[in-house]
Amino acid sequence: MSPNRQSPDDDVKRIRIFDTTLRDGEQAPGCTMTLSEKLDVAHQLTRLGVDVIEAGYPAASPGDAESVKAVAEEVGGAGGPTICGLARATEHDVRTCAASVGPAARNRIHIFLATSDIHLKHKLRCSRDEVLARGRDAVTLASSLVHEVEFSPEDAARTDPEYLLDVLAAVIECGATTLNIPDTVGFTTPWEYENTIRRVVELAAKHPGVLVSTHCHDDLGLAVANTLAGIRAGARQVEVTLNGIGERAGNASLEEVVMALHTRAELFDGAHTRIDTTQLTRASRLLQQCTGTYVAPNKAIVGANAFSHEAGIHQDGVLKHRATYEIMTPESVGADGSMLVLGKHSGRHALRQRLADMGHELDDDRFLEVFARFKELCDRKKVVDDRDIAALATAAHDHAPARWSLVQLQVASGTHLIPTSTVKIRAADGTSTVGSGTGDGPVDASCRAIDAVVGEIAELQGFTTRSVSEGTGALAEVTVRVKDFLTGRTFVGHGTNPDVVTASAEAYLDGVNRVLGARDAAQAAADAAESQMQYTFDSTKPARVSA
Amino acid sequence: MSPNRQSPDDDVKRIRIFDTTLRDGEQAPGCTMTLSEKLDVAHQLTRLGVDVIEAGYPAASPGDAESVKAVAEEVGGAGGPTICGLARATEHDVRTCAASVGPAARNRIHIFLATSDIHLKHKLRCSRDEVLARGRDAVTLASSLVHEVEFSPEDAARTDPEYLLDVLAAVIECGATTLNIPDTVGFTTPWEYENTIRRVVELAAKHPGVLVSTHCHDDLGLAVANTLAGIRAGARQVEVTLNGIGERAGNASLEEVVMALHTRAELFDGAHTRIDTTQLTRASRLLQQCTGTYVAPNKAIVGANAFSHEAGIHQDGVLKHRATYEIMTPESVGADGSMLVLGKHSGRHALRQRLADMGHELDDDRFLEVFARFKELCDRKKVVDDRDIAALATAAHDHAPARWSLVQLQVASGTHLIPTSTVKIRAADGTSTVGSGTGDGPVDASCRAIDAVVGEIAELQGFTTRSVSEGTGALAEVTVRVKDFLTGRTFVGHGTNPDVVTASAEAYLDGVNRVLGARDAAQAAADAAESQMQYTFDSTKPARVSA
Repeated sequence: MSPNRQSPDDDVKRIRIFDTTLRDGEQAPGCTMTLSEKLDVAHQLTRLGVDVIEAGYPAASPGDAESVKAVAEEVGGAGGPTICGLARATEHDVRTCAASVGPAARNRIHIFLATSDIHLKHKLRCSRDEVLARGRDAVTLASSLVHEVEFSPEDAARTDPEYLLDVLAAVIECGATTLNIPDTVGFTTPWEYENTIRRVVELAAKHPGVLVSTHCHDDLGLAVANTLAGIRAGARQVEVTLNGIGERAGNASLEEVVMALHTRAELFDGAHTRIDTTQLTRASRLLQQCTGTYVAPNKAIVGANAFSHEAGIHQDGVLKHRATYEIMTPESVGADGSMLVLGKHSGRHALRQRLADMGHELDDDRFLEVFARFKELCDRKKVVDDRDIAALATAAHDHAPARWSLVQLQVASGTHLIPTSTVKIRAADGTSTVGSGTGDGPVDASCRAIDAVVGEIAELQGFTTRSVSEGTGALAEVTVRVKDFLTGRTFVGHGTNPDVVTASAEAYLDGVNRVLGARDAAQAAADAAESQMQYTFDSTKPARVSA
Repeated sequence: MSPNRQSPDDDVKRIRIFDTTLRDGEQAPGCTMTLSEKLDVAHQLTRLGVDVIEAGYPAASPGDAESVKAVAEEVGGAGGPTICGLARATEHDVRTCAASVGPAARNRIHIFLATSDIHLKHKLRCSRDEVLARGRDAVTLASSLVHEVEFSPEDAARTDPEYLLDVLAAVIECGATTLNIPDTVGFTTPWEYENTIRRVVELAAKHPGVLVSTHCHDDLGLAVANTLAGIRAGARQVEVTLNGIGERAGNASLEEVVMALHTRAELFDGAHTRIDTTQLTRASRLLQQCTGTYVAPNKAIVGANAFSHEAGIHQDGVLKHRATYEIMTPESVGADGSMLVLGKHSGRHALRQRLADMGHELDDDRFLEVFARFKELCDRKKVVDDRDIAALATAAHDHAPARWSLVQLQVASGTHLIPTSTVKIRAADGTSTVGSGTGDGPVDASCRAIDAVVGEIAELQGFTTRSVSEGTGALAEVTVRVKDFLTGRTFVGHGTNPDVVTASAEAYLDGVNRVLGARDAAQAAADAAESQMQYTFDSTKPARVSA
């Protein structure tokens, strides 16, 4: 494939939304997702109408490479979003990335390279000239392999401005079509960032088809303001994540940036996006369910209270004239709380249709599992709403090949009893084993009972529960974090059940299955490596990174 | 008391921190606090070093008036923060407020009055001249009653700029010493707000001792940036809340504004605060525990991940040179995770000292309860850390006179059992009653068992659990939201126990006690009203508001 400049876009006021939820977001502690969850998120991002999906960092691990490829195959068809992967400025990273994004109708490699003196000195340990040469080589190679090349000078905010422009001019020559200016450490402010972006926009303006992009972190609470400052300065791509997830304090939040532009277009010279804003609430909820990482009630746009008007005078004002206190409507972001009026007489077709509307594309096995649980739930609740449906769908994600599954659980506990749990667990070969255990409470006792059957594989590190909807009969959604005793890696397990103890046992067993699945995958990769010399151009060990 | 201009402050670059966590924050859904919780927060705000505590809106209810007065008495001594209360521009509100803040060594009335045409037309239904006269009258009266008067033109961002300046000039004449410019609906941006504030600062500059203040809401994710823009324009007071809580998407977050100033002082012409930043993490956690409203892990400054460096390359960089990725240290905000190395051999003095350091001032009864639970916990965990201690202290808050307390609980549940719970509950008169119930799970069954004893008083609406610290033996902290069947009001109940089902039963019973306590208080207020004609200057019913 030859270098291929981005096709000129007639609409110079359109802001491209580059979503990095699956890359920068997924790196955050506790936000790890399974392949199936990543695909669900990718489908919802496509429904939102994002322009670019950064699906991962293929060189980080075979699993990352595989999931980027799966996203490219699943949503990267003609008319779909551009599929992008991250790569360091090395031949190995660039080639690995190109292979992963290959299946997409439109693909991109995002190359990052630190340019600030502090990074050069302490991390890369090389000179400015050496960095420049590495950038040229990597971009030249990438341009020959994919449709679009994006270049990020890491820690741009702390890079000498003159040197920054030299590096950018060099990579444009080599075929870069997007120049992304990350504020890696979340240090900048709107007043500085606007100037930084303006200088880069002046450079890019000399090269038709080259766009400037923002990438802001929220360490000082300024990520959204900085992103908007970048747009005012002429940036035409913004890198964002759903719910603002990401390293440390996270990235600029997609929903806040989009709704600020939508609500205050006049301040941004008419800048606008192609986002279907009515999909924002669903996208946010889907991600919360996949990661078990919930937004605060006062999170802008997508928090539970974002559109509530508690104060008496506010309610009075809203009743008299909505615009008195409302600058956006809940409907405009899909938060109108439309409830599924499905009950026990609803059929498979109605449920399947609703799941599809909500962004859950399930295969037949998963759908049948959800349908069975839906029927059970209808026996308890008169009205099953979207939140229940979403929780059931997320719980039904195939958790790698499940080694163990819970057949039966019984628990006795109380203030004057020693909490005791008995479980029956089925192995993959169909045989069942009974085990029991005691603990500080019924959940602890159930985890010990599971350990008695499967062995002590992982340590329970965190435990979060919430009820999915209100009232009696509501589902409890439990997320646990477990740490593999062997490798030290952390995994998230989910369980959903009206009984919080059963949901917890399911979540713990799910976590155990994920630990075992990862061990199997690592073993398979090691076996493959033995039978084949691995080609490495750069000796540095690939590692997860954040541009 | 005669009008009393703010004493001139030599330090023209000092930013006054006006904390409205207890007023604007406490109004948010789910953030209601008991008097005892409010006092704990007030003590921690004092330890943080805020300049002004807005403690509530006295005219809203007798309970609000009482809690503002209690804060004034408890932390408003000489050298303590100024204690402020909110008031509408009516004689009744102003006099009620003056009585409540009276006990403080330095006190303030914060008068708000809508000035935008949309509010005048749809809410106040009066003319610009009428509004101007109301503002003058209220400020004149307030100046005669307290040390400082603050005036807020509500919805200032949408008010005609000329009219805004006319109103402000008029209230300065009548004795207002702080002019607060709220962006009530969260609509403004740094680029507009900086200009708005600059015009007001020009006006204030003609009147020595008059300061300009910001008050920003986060509906578009811009509250912190707008606040900082105000400081750049010359504002010398900022209205903020811990964790950014407040109506809808909340207010500008105290910790983000303070740390942005602290980290980037050079961009704000040396503007600085008197805040002890090492108290920020504790303040944030205390508020989360009091309200059961938790911040997201990626919340800037105080989120669980705010200082984590997950990515391999980041960890590498941090190890090589901290400044590579860290713009603030965890120590600077008190997030160094200093663990209390207290175990079962630690005595009362050590625990009491630690509690005091952490901001929990407990009376003897509450302390003894915490100490007993601490000893129990030490039997389960080798090391009890600050998070456990804080959870125990918060759980020990006196929840109004407890009508009912849990003596014993036993539960049987499982996948093939009908969850069944039996409780023994003691009434205030010392008699105990046993009840049992069944439900969808052990928590539901326990709530039904409690109902069997106390009657069906409230509906369980929400349920959140998290483990306070890691590993086995960790405490489960349960927050429930219950709705009074009689009045429709919602209350929050807390429970903390290593057993999640016991913690849930405690939380539900706590919620029930709060419902009953509120009914008693309402009855007492109604009785008092009957025996005494109530003086009202303005016929409008007082209601909770947000400036």
